[in-house]
Amino acid sequence: MPKLDICFSPELLPLYDLRGQVAVIVDILRASSTIVTALGEGVTHVFPVASLEECTAYGLQHGCLTAAERDGIQAAGVDLGNSPFGFLDAARPVRGRALTISTTNGTTALRRSLAAAEIVVGAFLNLEAVADFARHQQRDVLVVCAGWKGQFCLEDTVFGGALAERLAEDFDVRSSDATLAALHLWQQGKADLSAYLLQSSHVRRLNSLEASQDFEFCLQMDTYASVLPIWRDDRLVRN
Amino acid sequence: MPKLDICFSPELLPLYDLRGQVAVIVDILRASSTIVTALGEGVTHVFPVASLEECTAYGLQHGCLTAAERDGIQAAGVDLGNSPFGFLDAARPVRGRALTISTTNGTTALRRSLAAAEIVVGAFLNLEAVADFARHQQRDVLVVCAGWKGQFCLEDTVFGGALAERLAEDFDVRSSDATLAALHLWQQGKADLSAYLLQSSHVRRLNSLEASQDFEFCLQMDTYASVLPIWRDDRLVRN
Repeated sequence: MPKLDICFSPELLPLYDLRGQVAVIVDILRASSTIVTALGEGVTHVFPVASLEECTAYGLQHGCLTAAERDGIQAAGVDLGNSPFGFLDAARPVRGRALTISTTNGTTALRRSLAAAEIVVGAFLNLEAVADFARHQQRDVLVVCAGWKGQFCLEDTVFGGALAERLAEDFDVRSSDATLAALHLWQQGKADLSAYLLQSSHVRRLNSLEASQDFEFCLQMDTYASVLPIWRDDRLVRN
Repeated sequence: MPKLDICFSPELLPLYDLRGQVAVIVDILRASSTIVTALGEGVTHVFPVASLEECTAYGLQHGCLTAAERDGIQAAGVDLGNSPFGFLDAARPVRGRALTISTTNGTTALRRSLAAAEIVVGAFLNLEAVADFARHQQRDVLVVCAGWKGQFCLEDTVFGGALAERLAEDFDVRSSDATLAALHLWQQGKADLSAYLLQSSHVRRLNSLEASQDFEFCLQMDTYASVLPIWRDDRLVRN
């Protein structure tokens, strides 16, 4: 039976051997949720980059949409902020366009996971897509929490617990303390996930109206249940 | 109000600024529990070292008791294994002796925490001694989980949650997701801590009779409620 493990921070990735494994990159608030939404709404592919400078450079080079924020507000010189709602605006259809998105924590997590056999992006919005892919791969799975500047982050961890619960019959979810802890936290919080995560300082920092809408959106389960962003060459495409 | 934070692995210590803080080194199974027991039973001071070789060298150099294990069994050429019961044997009194103990994870955690203003050792056995020290110091506290080869470990984390619960009125225990998660896990497990931790693979690995006795012993609360190992120069002494 393959194993499901959870890495709480990209800083801990050197402890894991990702070769032959599936890496699930998670940055619930908001990079992975936004990327799932973008591909779900018809974006053709996504280049995740760390900095605003790379974002605008890729945008010029590939002629694609650009998304970036500074201090929670859409950055100057780009098309969109990092909110999933940017991809749900009927006035600015995104279908058929490519996207470059600036996300520091998520990009770090992804770049450090390149040794994996497959790299996918997970969010509550596409939880079933991730679970389904994992079941078919029958490889060991490592959930890579993007965290917050390298630190442990409750919402990414709880996602790992939710995935472990869905895969409990097909995967060994009991041989890692990290997975056990994530399962416990998910089971404790799932009845009212929003209230549970609102205790987190990281979440409380997102206190503007727009951020609060984003937060509720990112906690929706399986809104894009068949959308699986997967890494191919230098970009994320829909599997 | 000072802050209580928890570092889940020595590998994450570079993310924290320990200057001016109190570091609480935790390796519940079993280094920190054994060190608390040793000092509680009259050992004068403890040199924690990483390897068996250092252990025997220190033993010769300082003429002290030596404790070390290989694969869960007392190593050749030393006086004791790493069990707290080695310090409770009336046939071999330890009062007045010094001790060198080989503990890989615990020593790594301690050596990487040397920037802290004060370094103490925490276990369930001396939880109140740690809480009391923290209240009097009024400095930020970082619980440094020794973990298991750098990885997240449930029993050390749950100790952090227990400490956070005791200090909740005097410390900010809500501004770090790691502390929040540890508090949740502690509150979930405390009614039957032994059963809760027995789910852990790391704990299940300790499946011999002796290890099982050690496990139950290490989960006792406040058996040494006034014993606080504190780092002075190159050794741990009783505060």
